[in-house]
Amino acid sequence: MRLATLRIDGGTLAVRVDPEHSSAVAIEGVADVGALLAAGPDWRERALAADGPRIPLDSLGTTAWAPVVPRPSKIVCVGLNYRDHILEMGRELPAYPTLFAKFAEALIGAGDDIRVPAHSAEALDWEGELAVVVGRAVRDVDPATAASAIAGYSVLNDVTMRDRQYRTTQWLQGKTLEGSCPFGPVLVTADEFTPGAALTTSIDGETVQHAATDDLVFGPAELVSYISSIVTLQPGDVIATGTPGGVGHAMPTPRHLAHGETVRVEIAGIGAVGNRVVVLDGGH
Amino acid sequence: MRLATLRIDGGTLAVRVDPEHSSAVAIEGVADVGALLAAGPDWRERALAADGPRIPLDSLGTTAWAPVVPRPSKIVCVGLNYRDHILEMGRELPAYPTLFAKFAEALIGAGDDIRVPAHSAEALDWEGELAVVVGRAVRDVDPATAASAIAGYSVLNDVTMRDRQYRTTQWLQGKTLEGSCPFGPVLVTADEFTPGAALTTSIDGETVQHAATDDLVFGPAELVSYISSIVTLQPGDVIATGTPGGVGHAMPTPRHLAHGETVRVEIAGIGAVGNRVVVLDGGH
Repeated sequence: MRLATLRIDGGTLAVRVDPEHSSAVAIEGVADVGALLAAGPDWRERALAADGPRIPLDSLGTTAWAPVVPRPSKIVCVGLNYRDHILEMGRELPAYPTLFAKFAEALIGAGDDIRVPAHSAEALDWEGELAVVVGRAVRDVDPATAASAIAGYSVLNDVTMRDRQYRTTQWLQGKTLEGSCPFGPVLVTADEFTPGAALTTSIDGETVQHAATDDLVFGPAELVSYISSIVTLQPGDVIATGTPGGVGHAMPTPRHLAHGETVRVEIAGIGAVGNRVVVLDGGH
Repeated sequence: MRLATLRIDGGTLAVRVDPEHSSAVAIEGVADVGALLAAGPDWRERALAADGPRIPLDSLGTTAWAPVVPRPSKIVCVGLNYRDHILEMGRELPAYPTLFAKFAEALIGAGDDIRVPAHSAEALDWEGELAVVVGRAVRDVDPATAASAIAGYSVLNDVTMRDRQYRTTQWLQGKTLEGSCPFGPVLVTADEFTPGAALTTSIDGETVQHAATDDLVFGPAELVSYISSIVTLQPGDVIATGTPGGVGHAMPTPRHLAHGETVRVEIAGIGAVGNRVVVLDGGH
C-alpha cells in the first residue's frame, strides 16, 4: 500500500495511492499520514478500507504532494552509514550510528521548490536517502520488535548547508534549514518494500549518486532499536538512514547546488522527489 | 510575571504564580504555558488578567510542576558558550554558536526524579543552564527584534550521557535521553529578568557550578537571531544557552551522577530544579 499527504483546497488530506487506477483515494477525516499513524494500530485497515472521493493522479500538480508526514515529532538523521562509501574513504566501519536531528520546518513536498535565502545558499549540497517512518510508539525494543514498528519507507533529500555544517563540530545548523528537505512523494508500507532497491540522485539529469539501499552499516530495524534505547519513537517519526557516496562536497572540486538547478532523488519501488533550487534575495 | 504548568487532576494547567500571595492562579482553559504562548500575541494580558481558582503553593508536591513548556516544537542547545570557561580551557572564543538538539521526550518537571534505565546511567553528568523561551514566531530577525520575541527565562539541567555523547562526533544521542532534562519551575517574563543572576548547581548540597548567567559569548537575543536565520522559532521553543565550568566530565577524576543523588540547579530570581537520580533495572 502507498500512502501520501495531498494539499487539497487549502488544507491537506491523507490518501491511499492506487497506481493501478492512476488515482488517490481520500482517507476521509484524516488530515495527513502522520495523523493516520497517530490515530492507532488499525491504520492499515483504515487506509485499506478508505473509499472516499477518487482523485486522478494526473490532475495533481507537482506541488500537490505535501511531505508524507508533514510534522513528525522527531526527525533523526544518520551519518556515515553506507558501507561501500565508508570503506572507499579508507575509514573503519563505525561501532555506533552517528545521529543528528532535523526540525520539521525543514520538510517540503516531493515537487516543491527548495526556496532558500541567499545567505543560506552558498554551499548547498544534496544527500539522497531512504527514509524510515515509524508506525507505533516504541521504547527500548530489540531489532525484531523494532522491525514490526516500521510503517514504511519514503525518499528524503537531506539537503545540507556545508558551510554551516562545518562552522562548529555539531552539524545541526547545516542540516535544518527551513524548507530545504524534500520528503515523499509516498510512504510504501513495509510489507511492500524491502531496502535494497537502487537510490539514484541526479542534478538536471546527471547522475551523481547511485547505490543499493541495503548497503547500510545500521539497517532500519537496528536504527529503530538503537534510537529507542534513548527515547521513545512516536508514530510518524522519521529516520533518514544516511547517504551513499557522490555528494558534491566530496568531489575533487566541490560542487554546490545552484539557483535554477533541479535535484532529484529516486528510489526504485517508491518514487522520486524532484526539486528546483530557488535562491531568494533578502535576509539580514 | 511568573508562569508555570502544573499537573492537576490528571491533566495540566497553565498558571500565573503569585509569590506575594504564595499561590498560583489558574489561567482557565489553557493546558500549559506552551499553549498560552501559541494562542497569540496577547498572552501577557491574558495571563495577567487570569482570575481562576487560587492554588496555595504549599499544597503542591514536588511533582506538581510539569516542564514549563511540556512539548516545545524545538529545543536548541548551545555548547561552549561561557566565556570564562572557554578561556580557562585555553580555547579561543568561537565565531559561531555550537548548536545541537534535544527532543521533547527528554523534559521532566522541576521536582521529578530523573528515572533512567541502567544501560543509560553509566556516565550521567549535569549541565546547569539558563533557558530562553520564545514568545512568538520569528524568522531571519536581527538581534533587536529577536530580543522582543523572548517570552522569558527558566532553568534547565541539560543532563548528558557522556558515554553516548562521545560515541560518535555528534552529541545528539548523549543529549536526548528520555526523562533526563529538568526544566522549570517557572518562566519569568523578560520584563522581570535580565541574564546576569548567578547560576548554581549542587549535588546533595555540594556546589559544583557557580557562574553569572551573562558571561555568554552569544547572549539570548543573538542566539534567537542566529537560529532564526536557519529556521523559524515558534512560540514555546526553548534555547538552552550552555553551561559554565564545573561539569563532572571535566574534573581531574571525572564524576558522574549516582543513583540516589539529588542534583539541583538554581538561578537567582527564577528558582530551582532539584531532581533525584533513580536508576532503573531493565532495558535490553
